Parts: sequence; structure tokens; C-alpha cells
Amino acid sequence: MSFAAVDIIRTKRDKGVLSDAQIDWVVDAYTRGVVADEQMSALAMAILLNGMTPGEIARWTAAMIASGERLDLSKVGRPTVDKHSTGGVGDKITLPLTPLVAALGAAVPQLSGRGLGHTGGTLDKLEAIPGFGTKLTNEQFTEQLRTVGAAICAAGEGLAPADRKLYALRDVTGTVEAIPLIASSIMSKKIAEGTGALVLDVKFGSGAFMRDVADARELARTMVELGKAHGVTTVALLTDMDVPLGRAVGHSVEVEESLEVLAGGGPADVVELTLALAREMLDAAGLRDADPQAALADGRAMDAWRAMVRAQGGDPEAPLPVAGEVEQITADRDGYLAGLDAYAVGVAAWRLGAGRARKEDPVSASAGIILHRKPGAAVRAGDVIMELRAEDAARLPAALEVARGAVMIADAPPGPRKLILDRIS
Amino acid sequence: MSFAAVDIIRTKRDKGVLSDAQIDWVVDAYTRGVVADEQMSALAMAILLNGMTPGEIARWTAAMIASGERLDLSKVGRPTVDKHSTGGVGDKITLPLTPLVAALGAAVPQLSGRGLGHTGGTLDKLEAIPGFGTKLTNEQFTEQLRTVGAAICAAGEGLAPADRKLYALRDVTGTVEAIPLIASSIMSKKIAEGTGALVLDVKFGSGAFMRDVADARELARTMVELGKAHGVTTVALLTDMDVPLGRAVGHSVEVEESLEVLAGGGPADVVELTLALAREMLDAAGLRDADPQAALADGRAMDAWRAMVRAQGGDPEAPLPVAGEVEQITADRDGYLAGLDAYAVGVAAWRLGAGRARKEDPVSASAGIILHRKPGAAVRAGDVIMELRAEDAARLPAALEVARGAVMIADAPPGPRKLILDRIS
Repeated sequence: MSFAAVDIIRTKRDKGVLSDAQIDWVVDAYTRGVVADEQMSALAMAILLNGMTPGEIARWTAAMIASGERLDLSKVGRPTVDKHSTGGVGDKITLPLTPLVAALGAAVPQLSGRGLGHTGGTLDKLEAIPGFGTKLTNEQFTEQLRTVGAAICAAGEGLAPADRKLYALRDVTGTVEAIPLIASSIMSKKIAEGTGALVLDVKFGSGAFMRDVADARELARTMVELGKAHGVTTVALLTDMDVPLGRAVGHSVEVEESLEVLAGGGPADVVELTLALAREMLDAAGLRDADPQAALADGRAMDAWRAMVRAQGGDPEAPLPVAGEVEQITADRDGYLAGLDAYAVGVAAWRLGAGRARKEDPVSASAGIILHRKPGAAVRAGDVIMELRAEDAARLPAALEVARGAVMIADAPPGPRKLILDRIS
Repeated sequence: MSFAAVDIIRTKRDKGVLSDAQIDWVVDAYTRGVVADEQMSALAMAILLNGMTPGEIARWTAAMIASGERLDLSKVGRPTVDKHSTGGVGDKITLPLTPLVAALGAAVPQLSGRGLGHTGGTLDKLEAIPGFGTKLTNEQFTEQLRTVGAAICAAGEGLAPADRKLYALRDVTGTVEAIPLIASSIMSKKIAEGTGALVLDVKFGSGAFMRDVADARELARTMVELGKAHGVTTVALLTDMDVPLGRAVGHSVEVEESLEVLAGGGPADVVELTLALAREMLDAAGLRDADPQAALADGRAMDAWRAMVRAQGGDPEAPLPVAGEVEQITADRDGYLAGLDAYAVGVAAWRLGAGRARKEDPVSASAGIILHRKPGAAVRAGDVIMELRAEDAARLPAALEVARGAVMIADAPPGPRKLILDRIS
């Protein structure tokens, strides 16, 4: 069955519901280049503005999965469980979490992405480790999951190629923020990678793509339903992203912080979220007796990390790069640190060189920000709030400008902040 | 000043108002290829769904005019006045109207288009005349306006190139039906062609692009305001397009009908609309004493037609092509012809070969439809309602199928129909 792309665009433009056959056709025809980029971007804008029914989202996701191969992880010999975060500032959780869950008997097939805009990407962080390779063949990936239990790499070309093409298009056409398209993009990749279970970290707040908690909740619900419909046990946590996670934002600095967590220490919020997500993943994998806190304390998680880094060509003992150009931001008065805007910190790190403007740009492994104080702390005028690091001193002024705007000092301490707001299953 | 295209798309997506600088930049950057097709189509969809303020539409139009040259018709030595129809079925009015108004002392700089979808295009109709050329240089165009007073040709490449590019894009991305984009597209070309006054025939009904009279009225008001803002005296008539105009739909058949009108005869509705538009044009050109009815009756309009056809290389005496394959549709019962759906008749003519699916397709000059009865007529079972003509007999069945659906026979005659509903100035 063949459809004119224009009729499909018009249907959604006029608030109609696309048929299964229309969705199957347009996703396949776009992947093959029969539907042009300019037609798909008009359709994406119509979807963003007019929405999709749950039935349309489910079919769209299925069509994106069907555009490529679906991995078979049955030979891995362990229960498989993956985690996906919708992205935030300082969100290095995948780094300690993946080996932690692997150390306790599950296999974590982490196909990760790169940072875009103000958010960091897991692959960029791992590439700060000398030698670490993020490209694995399907066979290497499966074998590493069988032996080590943890693998973090880029998705292969064969997985959901429709999504790969559409994701790049949405990025340049102002159509990223459509819940049906975000949900189907994430879930098509995760379902195609063959994981048996999935835990979603859906973030809301200034540093997240969804600023509004209601939007984040709708996205979480949509994804949980999509996972279930495809036989993947799926759970979502709704988590706060108004403030950066932990004390480090950047690549090598976030790897350092992840190592602290794997060594049994690290910032409280990073540890709290790592453990909460680990418990959800272990539960979903049927490993209800596993104790992730103990595995961090006794070194089992660190051993799994080292095994994973070595398996991917990295040297876990090699020193990480450190940026030489440093500037500090200090408190301009006494009081309490009331807020530290995640978006502003993310943009500042991006300006320091940690982020990229286009997908093909390189990033600086060592550029980043160290937060010396987190909200709630009492501060005195002159106290260091944060430290900005760059390889290139010319990048500091623009980063300082936006980072200063992140700092809010008040006379009274802020109210308590809940990191994990809700669980959706 | 430079803007990221994505920021501009997002502004309109989120129902914001684009600044003058944003509009100037995006129209210019799109013309130069800096803004990609997929970005402009996403923006066009956002404009279609979220609208534009009068200020945005005015600036957008100005930016499209500024993308190319603006003709100077001051050497023509006559008052210039043009007419534009938003398109319909059987709408051959430009053919008798242009020489008629020229015969009475004005110059009519008609830059016309080709048919697309179910509507016919003036250039396709004129090309049914052996030898008639629709490509004139700016110099030929100006000189013909000076000597003959009438010229109907394709717009040159230099006129509003932004519109040329955007129009082709909108056609394949489901973004044709946006009032701000329709208004700015029409008016940018008409203002750039240098006419001193403009009369718009804005159609509503099944065979028009605006089915709803309220939309047509908004489009008319928008265009009248745009014309005035650019110093072009602009008037619009709101006219009915539920039924095809006249008795002929196609190219050579519409030229034949236009010749009847120029000879002082022709169908009542074609004559009524030709005279109404001629009076508006002559008024707008300051020629208030001219009598168009007399110029049709005494042959002056026909003389101007012949002069125009000859000036453009055509032979006004040459016989027009006639299609050899004919099928008739007859009344299946006694009664009154209550309706003759313009859209269905237009699609039928299109299927016979008169229309094109893509801009670059050729059309059949002789394919078309002759309406033997118009709504209001009493009919008996077996009476011929219409005659379908094609060069290729294989085209008849699909055309017959849709044409039969155009015919509505009732027991009582339909109420009176007003051809010209309103005047907006």
C-alpha cells in the first residue's frame, strides 16, 4: 500500500489519527529516502503541535523497530536489564550503575549516546579514559555481556535506522520536544537492543529537556506502556534536574566522581540515585536479593568497572586529563546557597568546551565545572561556589558569564529537595 | 544579524511573534540555501498551525519582495492594473479580461501561473493556442504593455525568488493552506511585478483552495492590507466557486469560451464576473468613464486579444486542438440540476489529462469537460449533463467515475446563487 506523503502530513495537520498502514508506510519510506526530509520535518512539527494517540505512538515505535535489526541477547546467559536517562547536567549515573548491576549478576546492554546542547553524553565521558573504545560489533557486545556483564557503547548502524535519521532531523528543525517522538525514539532503540527489562530515569526541571513535571510524567507513562506492549518489563523514576547531579560536570571530572562512587564514596545525591536505579534494575531482572550498597562498599562494583574498561580497550589505571585553565566563582555575600541552576551550569560547561554545537564537533575531555557548594550550604562572602576548567583560556569569559547567573544566594536556607519524586510502572 | 534557524522555528512553534530581523534573516537565508528545506517546512507548518500577526505577514511579504528585483513599469505610459484569482475550476476570466481592460486604456501586467491539482492555470490555457509563447524578458514585457497594453506570461526568475522556492516546498509538505503564506506569496509577486493597482478575485467553495467563506474573507482582507501597505491600490471580490465558471473546463475549450465572450457572447456567469472585475480594474486605474460592456460588444476587446496573441508569437486564426475521445454523462432521472460540484469536475478534468501531478508534467491541451447544463436547469432522464474529452481513451473511466459524483439532481430547482458575494477594499 502506498500513500502520498502530503496526505499523511495533512491528516496530522488537521488533527486526524494516522492509520497503522500510513504509519508503517511513512516510517519505512522515510528510511528509504522516498519521503523527503522536508516532508518528515513538516509531519514532525504537526505531531509536536497536534499530538498522537497512544495507538499511534505504539505503531510508530513498532515501525521504527522494524526499520532495522533486533538484537538477540539470549546467548548472554544472564538476565538483561538496561537503564535510560532522558538527560541532564552532571548525570554520570550510567558509569557507576552499569558495572554495579553487572557485579550482582545481571547483564547491562548499555547503548548510549553523545551529549547535545547543554546535556552531557555517556560516550563522551567514557572517551576521557585513555584507550576506551565506544564502537563494538554486535558479536563483541554480546560476548562482553556474557563475560563481563557490562558494556557501554554506541548503537550500531543496523539498529532502528529510522530513528537515527529522524533524530538528526528533529535536532535541526525545532521538533525535539514532542513527547510522542521522544518516547518512540528512546523505546525503539531500547527494544531493538534486545534488553529483557528497562529502568527509565525521566528527569524534569531546568536542566532537563522536560522542564515541567507534568510533561515528564506523561513521557514516563508513555514509555512504560510502550515497553510493556513489546514485552519489556519497564519501570520509570521521575527525578529532579533543577540542580546538577553531584559535584562534577564535564567528562574526565565526571569519570573521577564515578570512581569515587565505585570506591564506596561520592556525593550523596549521586549515590542515592545510583542505588535507587540499581535496586529497580535488579528487581526487574529478578535478582531481588542482591545488595547494591554492599557491592559498592566491598569493591565488587569497582572490579566490574575495571573489567569493562579493559574489555573495551581502556586503561583503568591511566591518569585522566586535567584542564589547565581555571577560574573560580565566589559568593558575593553571606547567606545560604538557595539554588544552582542546572541549565545555566550545563550551558557554562558547554561553553568551556565540554559540549558541541553540531553532532560532528569534537569535545574537550577535560573541560568542566567542579561545584564546591550545593544548594542548602551556608556560604560566606568570598567562599568558592564553583570552579570552571578549560583547555583554552579564551573559552572562560563566556562560560563565567552564564555560570554566575546560576548562583542564587538567599538569607534563609532553601526547603528540602526530593531527588526522586515518583515511580511509574 | 544572524539567527539560528532552530530558534526561529521554536519561537513560532511556541506561539511567539517573530521579530522583523528574524523574518528578514530567515527569508534571505532560505533563498541563499543557508536555511535548509527541512527547516523551512517545519517553520511553514508552525505558521500554518499557529498563525502570524498582521505585522509578521507584512514583514514576511516585504522580505520576499526584497529577495529579488522589483519591476519598474513607469515607462509603459498607461495606468497599470493587474488581477489575480486564487484559483478555481473553469476560471478562464484572465483571458477575456486582460485584453478588455487593455482596450480601454490601461496596461495589464499579467504574470500568471500554471495549474496544480484540480485547478487550471492561465499559462496552460494560452499554450493551447498554436505558437503562443509564455516566456518574455522584462524588456519584452514592458514594451508589449506599452504598445498592446496586455501581456500574459510567466514570472521571470528574478522576481521574488524566495516565493518561488517556498511555493514548491509548500506544495510537497502539506503547508499550502496557510493564510499568511498564501497572502504573502500572491502579494509579493504582484507587488514585485510593479503594478500600480490590483484587483483580487478571492474564491470560496468546493472548487476553491478556501472552501470556507470566512477563510476566504480573511485571506482577502489580509491581501488588501498588504497591497495598501506597499502603495498598491488593492480591491478584492469574494466570489463563489461551488460550481465551475462557464461551460468549459480545460485548456483549448476554455480558450474557445473566452473567444465567445470577446465576441460579445459567452455564458452569463463568465460575462458577469469579467465585467465586474473589469469595472474594478478600470476604477482602480482611474479610468472611471470606460465602458467594458461596449468594448466587448463592438470588438475592441477582441482586437486587443488578437494583438496580444500575435505579440506573443501566437496565431489567433489557427484552429485549436480538439480531443477525439468523448464520453457523455446523462441525467438518470427527471428533475432539476441542483448542483455540479466544482471540485469533482476539476478532478475529472485533471484525470482526463488537463492537470498535472507534478510541476514538471506536461498537460493535454485538448482534454477537458463541456457542461451542457448548469445548476437550476430542468432535466429529463437521458439528457446530456456533461461531455468528457480526452486524447487518450484510457483516461476516460477514472474521470467518468469522479465526474458522475459531481451531478446532483433534485425534484425542485435550487435557490438563486450569488456569484459575487462581497467587495473588500
